[in-house]
Amino acid sequence: MNKPTPLSGFPELLPSQRTVEREVIATLSRTFELHGFGNIETRAVEPMDQLLRKGDTSKEVYVLRRLQEDDSSRTESNRSGGMGLHFDLTVPFARYVLENAGKLEFPFRRYQIQKVWRGERPQEGRFREFAQADIDIVGRDTLPFHHDVEVARVMLEALGKLTFLPGFTLQVNNRKLIQGFYAGLGAPDVEETMRLIDKLDKMPADEVGKLLVSEAGLSDDQAAKCLELATITATDDSFVEKVRALGVESELLEEGLSELATLINATAPLTGPDSGSNSVRVVADLSIARGLDYYTGTVFETRLDGYETLGSICSGGRYDALASDGKTTYPGVGISLGVSRVLVPLVQKGVLDGDRKVPSTVLVAVADEESRAEADSAAQQLRAHNVACEVSPNAAKFGKQIRFAERRGIPYVLFATEGGYEIKDIRTGDQVPADPATWTPQNESDLKPQVVVNNEEKK
Amino acid sequence: MNKPTPLSGFPELLPSQRTVEREVIATLSRTFELHGFGNIETRAVEPMDQLLRKGDTSKEVYVLRRLQEDDSSRTESNRSGGMGLHFDLTVPFARYVLENAGKLEFPFRRYQIQKVWRGERPQEGRFREFAQADIDIVGRDTLPFHHDVEVARVMLEALGKLTFLPGFTLQVNNRKLIQGFYAGLGAPDVEETMRLIDKLDKMPADEVGKLLVSEAGLSDDQAAKCLELATITATDDSFVEKVRALGVESELLEEGLSELATLINATAPLTGPDSGSNSVRVVADLSIARGLDYYTGTVFETRLDGYETLGSICSGGRYDALASDGKTTYPGVGISLGVSRVLVPLVQKGVLDGDRKVPSTVLVAVADEESRAEADSAAQQLRAHNVACEVSPNAAKFGKQIRFAERRGIPYVLFATEGGYEIKDIRTGDQVPADPATWTPQNESDLKPQVVVNNEEKK
Repeated sequence: MNKPTPLSGFPELLPSQRTVEREVIATLSRTFELHGFGNIETRAVEPMDQLLRKGDTSKEVYVLRRLQEDDSSRTESNRSGGMGLHFDLTVPFARYVLENAGKLEFPFRRYQIQKVWRGERPQEGRFREFAQADIDIVGRDTLPFHHDVEVARVMLEALGKLTFLPGFTLQVNNRKLIQGFYAGLGAPDVEETMRLIDKLDKMPADEVGKLLVSEAGLSDDQAAKCLELATITATDDSFVEKVRALGVESELLEEGLSELATLINATAPLTGPDSGSNSVRVVADLSIARGLDYYTGTVFETRLDGYETLGSICSGGRYDALASDGKTTYPGVGISLGVSRVLVPLVQKGVLDGDRKVPSTVLVAVADEESRAEADSAAQQLRAHNVACEVSPNAAKFGKQIRFAERRGIPYVLFATEGGYEIKDIRTGDQVPADPATWTPQNESDLKPQVVVNNEEKK
Repeated sequence: MNKPTPLSGFPELLPSQRTVEREVIATLSRTFELHGFGNIETRAVEPMDQLLRKGDTSKEVYVLRRLQEDDSSRTESNRSGGMGLHFDLTVPFARYVLENAGKLEFPFRRYQIQKVWRGERPQEGRFREFAQADIDIVGRDTLPFHHDVEVARVMLEALGKLTFLPGFTLQVNNRKLIQGFYAGLGAPDVEETMRLIDKLDKMPADEVGKLLVSEAGLSDDQAAKCLELATITATDDSFVEKVRALGVESELLEEGLSELATLINATAPLTGPDSGSNSVRVVADLSIARGLDYYTGTVFETRLDGYETLGSICSGGRYDALASDGKTTYPGVGISLGVSRVLVPLVQKGVLDGDRKVPSTVLVAVADEESRAEADSAAQQLRAHNVACEVSPNAAKFGKQIRFAERRGIPYVLFATEGGYEIKDIRTGDQVPADPATWTPQNESDLKPQVVVNNEEKK
């Protein structure tokens, strides 16, 4: 086998880099669990007809077939058009809720951290295989609005704990607000208006304005008001007055204004320099629409400071019908963090890495092969009180064993002397007697590989 | 969408059941890391030509294509016969080692816990999607035998910590021993002899004996000796004398006997009722050959007590060439635990489950919607010192909120009284004043969902 080359769009990490991803996943998981979210995993495959329900994502799906599948056996997997790899965690979760509804307690809080696959062209922050971390709360028949506030607060808290990442800006809007505004304004096609406004991040405002007239049937004045609405941003509920100043009225608009104001007021205390967390900001941004997705109220997007070209790295919202079996409807609200989209570019640029290549805190030196059993025994004594270690694979000269530890980033080397064991901190050269049954590093952080930030991107 | 039905061979767990799987994965991970094994993940897909190198597994591979892939764009993914989902973690790991050899430190210890996919017919303990946990140690050019002992000890320690599972029996043999025996005996086709002996677990010994004569060209006496070798088992190095009593000699046989004796003697102290762990046994079993796999020394299989029909749930061995790029060869030794194969049958039978449906230790009651913000604040105080909790979704009567907690298995309910907060243990009915900023459950085990064993399978 020749040396294989990486596969574009399928990023893989080195062991030290994987430290970063594991730390992120552990922090997210712990935060979600503190808020009562239970973990599930769903299978990687779904029937094609389920994957294609949203229509416009069909181009991204990977279809599966068994290699030995012949035409006669193909019936089985093709009953419903065959099977494909899931491209998000929402479609499988909606199916899981319907399939297990009788065994779940509602409101059902779950988090799910898994790989998803999309056959799209790879580019920065866009991969064909990537990990997502989703939280959702699902109700049966109804789900009070305070759960919208809850998912925003939980994700903000989680992002705030990722202190080695750049800051985040959570942008929030509400579909009721914008749809109610367009309706109150007398827009003949509310959906089309929203679809065009959503192009504002890719197209100049005056061009969008022309399309609003030519394609959505608005008057010049109506189009101008829609564009003006989309310019409104605020870090508190002052956006309410700015919207009212545009002179449009509708019941749905009022509902949206009230919900968004509640959300902004409830999340503001979690942000800013005094929140004790990473720099996380929340902004009401009335240009956010989330395109063709099926949200019905709150919508979220998130930008990573300094990496705005990555697009939204954490998105979601409220859907009045996450799932429905015809008899019962399951409304939900959720938000999904693109774990790979955030981490892989930072790791590949070397901004983030682990500080060692192995979990070991200690290398147990071996004087000669005859004493390997004693070295093994000393190592087991360290492990018994949770000090990770490895035993030197050979009985090379002591200096060589030190360099072996150095190359791996192992901070300590334990070795036997005539009077007992001694341990050397190879970063400082300090060497002291040590009992492997009780020794533990002075700094608890030496017990595990740590994430390091390698440039001024770190605040 | 009608109620979906489960997909045969793609098991999914309920939130409480997932507690069991997460506990197993956490225990394995922690043990592997204490021994210096670093974690990696590899992508789910490999080029088909790599997946099919072993030949006989071709029938099991899932092939991928992008839905919108037309004939002209198909060239890209078909350069090397297209892509498929990996069916084990060894093929991707070997590729990862070659691809990253310049950035890895050898001997390279890694563990990997991921899903794999096989298109085979689903049956008990056999799935189309399942999780494996692999440990391997890989050297550059050479890898001393003591690493064979190491992987056996690490996996035994990990299995021993899974105290809620039935006991395990690790069966060990050595290819050098059996191949050296057949060669010393004058067998004309050592490979074929081994292949036939491997059928002993599916076919009566006398039928295998006839095949040894008719297909492997052995004399009746030679065939009888091969069958006799395969009956030898021992929990110590007494097997050496039993083999010598058969009067066959060869250098390779001696090497195999010595390696296997070393391994049995080094692992025996980790087993038995005095080892302080789950009931784990190690047996030298000279019938174990691992079929067509490419092992060259130590081979492992493992049986789960009371679930022998599942077959080997943890297998592996030594391969002198895990990977090679033509210039450098990477020998390895590893062992792979079938996490789903062990857990899913036990979970589906209800033998193992989690003790609650949510991570929450506390439900914070809500007296009326006006006081929800105070309930949220009390919840945040609990979370600040790592007590997981959720706030009641509604302000129903107190008795209803208690039943809400009960259905989820949440042990405590916190509520505001005129004099401050009180907390009720709903299992005992005990109710005491509690400060949410400091309260923590008396039993630390209440902080996290626990695995429960629901029948007499538990030792």
